Amino acid sequence: MPISRKPKRFPPDYYIEGILNHDRVVLSQSITLAESHLPSDQELSSLVLDKLIPHSGNSIRVGITGVPGVGKSTFIEALGTKLTEEGKRLAVLAIDPSSQRSGGSILGDKTRMVALAHNPSAYIRPSAAGRALGGVGFKTREAIIFCEAAGFDVIFVETVGVGQSETMVHGMVDFFLLLMLAGAGDELQGIKKGIMEMADTIVINKADGDNEKKAKKAKVEYQNALHLFPPAENGWYPKVLTSSSLQKNGIDEVWKLIESYKSEMTQNGFFIKNRQDQNANWMFDAVKFHLEQRFYSYDFIKKAATELKREVEAGVKAPTRAALELLRLYDNK
Amino acid sequence: MPISRKPKRFPPDYYIEGILNHDRVVLSQSITLAESHLPSDQELSSLVLDKLIPHSGNSIRVGITGVPGVGKSTFIEALGTKLTEEGKRLAVLAIDPSSQRSGGSILGDKTRMVALAHNPSAYIRPSAAGRALGGVGFKTREAIIFCEAAGFDVIFVETVGVGQSETMVHGMVDFFLLLMLAGAGDELQGIKKGIMEMADTIVINKADGDNEKKAKKAKVEYQNALHLFPPAENGWYPKVLTSSSLQKNGIDEVWKLIESYKSEMTQNGFFIKNRQDQNANWMFDAVKFHLEQRFYSYDFIKKAATELKREVEAGVKAPTRAALELLRLYDNK
Repeated sequence: MPISRKPKRFPPDYYIEGILNHDRVVLSQSITLAESHLPSDQELSSLVLDKLIPHSGNSIRVGITGVPGVGKSTFIEALGTKLTEEGKRLAVLAIDPSSQRSGGSILGDKTRMVALAHNPSAYIRPSAAGRALGGVGFKTREAIIFCEAAGFDVIFVETVGVGQSETMVHGMVDFFLLLMLAGAGDELQGIKKGIMEMADTIVINKADGDNEKKAKKAKVEYQNALHLFPPAENGWYPKVLTSSSLQKNGIDEVWKLIESYKSEMTQNGFFIKNRQDQNANWMFDAVKFHLEQRFYSYDFIKKAATELKREVEAGVKAPTRAALELLRLYDNK
Repeated sequence: MPISRKPKRFPPDYYIEGILNHDRVVLSQSITLAESHLPSDQELSSLVLDKLIPHSGNSIRVGITGVPGVGKSTFIEALGTKLTEEGKRLAVLAIDPSSQRSGGSILGDKTRMVALAHNPSAYIRPSAAGRALGGVGFKTREAIIFCEAAGFDVIFVETVGVGQSETMVHGMVDFFLLLMLAGAGDELQGIKKGIMEMADTIVINKADGDNEKKAKKAKVEYQNALHLFPPAENGWYPKVLTSSSLQKNGIDEVWKLIESYKSEMTQNGFFIKNRQDQNANWMFDAVKFHLEQRFYSYDFIKKAATELKREVEAGVKAPTRAALELLRLYDNK
């Protein structure tokens, strides 16, 4: 008997009820559904999402980024364990842009967060960025809603700080946290320009042992530097903290800061306004994404685009001309 | 006799030959053509552009931004006059995002750059951002090519540092210069977050009189701060300079910096690679822009989008669902 290539799917209510009943297996199935490229799955997933939206929103969404080696896993374990001990339910959604090339390793491995992986109040879900990074934005956004409807009250969205996924993640979280190491220099090479200005807080990690003094110095330097930069639209100046995930120092302070941010932004109305804007952007981004996806889904368009791109780069064809030619090809399809 | 609403147009060769003959009137007419929203004008303009592309590229393109009050006009006059005295031909393209509301004032006024306006080696062209900021990117990019084909060897693209146009401008210039004032504080409020991390240099302007000491202090502070931030992809750390456009101090140093940047980036290959990437992005951006423009050109789509956006913001409709509904409407048109 031939193996069916079409994955088994259930009616919308299966996913909706499963998630609302906090069923982890169904939650995972739903996120897999959201990640699918099949149009029928996208349709089904959007129906599920539509019913779950009114049950979502009751969490704080925190983006956590930092280059490999900064100690993200231990930091997330330390902060996450603290939160679950306080009775909170935590979901960690990890976006791994390198998974396609490396076969999924740096983030896709549950063994790197052993304590949380065995913690009944925590849920860890790695997301392979795969081919279309643009698509990941939507998948992770859907996963956030699913997790909220499944009763999680804290959502971490984890990225590695080296790619374009951070801007995307910044557009779907309430608070954006950047982990760094003390001793400005080499470790900066890994971080993409522009990410630091998005951070609501910079946490200097591994502030222990010989590193502690350096970390405190770095804290002062960054705090001074950030004050020279413009504040965010909401008036927030990013704070700099130090932490040691090993010695569990500074972890409480990080959470206190996030909570004070939430309460301040709730009071001044930014919290809700930001989420409304993010939702509207999500809709418009999805339209844009689908329009482009349809356009480039034709092989002859893809081929012509590659050819025209070469001429445009060589400076022998005007980019606007090339664009109009592509659009004409599309119209005559 | 009724006034014809369709502007007078000429065959492509009129514009091509006029520009190649350094005819300023034709250059202005060509930029007006590029700014037009009429599809027939866009077609004509892309034909002209296509023939001029091989004659373009022989300039250095410098983005200059800073909030109103920072002294952009005097700075551009001082630097621009110096360059024309050295025998260079300078084009200043000013993007004014506020022109729609204010009726075009802060940048659209040639009287604010009197010396350059009467300088035969300089050409000033204000560009009203108008309704579609997205569109301005293409218009200004076309204007750059036209100016280069018309023999200008330095192009300034001027913006006011308060909007989204800066990211766009950053994507079409070789070098991005941010003008600031000494005394961190209030003047920062005007600058949009993210702009400082795009700057290749920060110039502290009005470093004269009582301000000089403050400016020197600010220079050191910013230089230290910027070293804590990651370098650009090309390895360049932004430099901080001071200048007084009134006393003509520091103007030479700014130009020397730009020239050393150009020579360094030419040697390491970034200069040409960056322009190739910018051209390819221009093509893909133009496709995206047209796809979206077509989509929202239907009144029933625009109306439905407004309605759905409201539901999405209120959290009663899933953004992906709303997007799929819009796409379905479009397909059934």
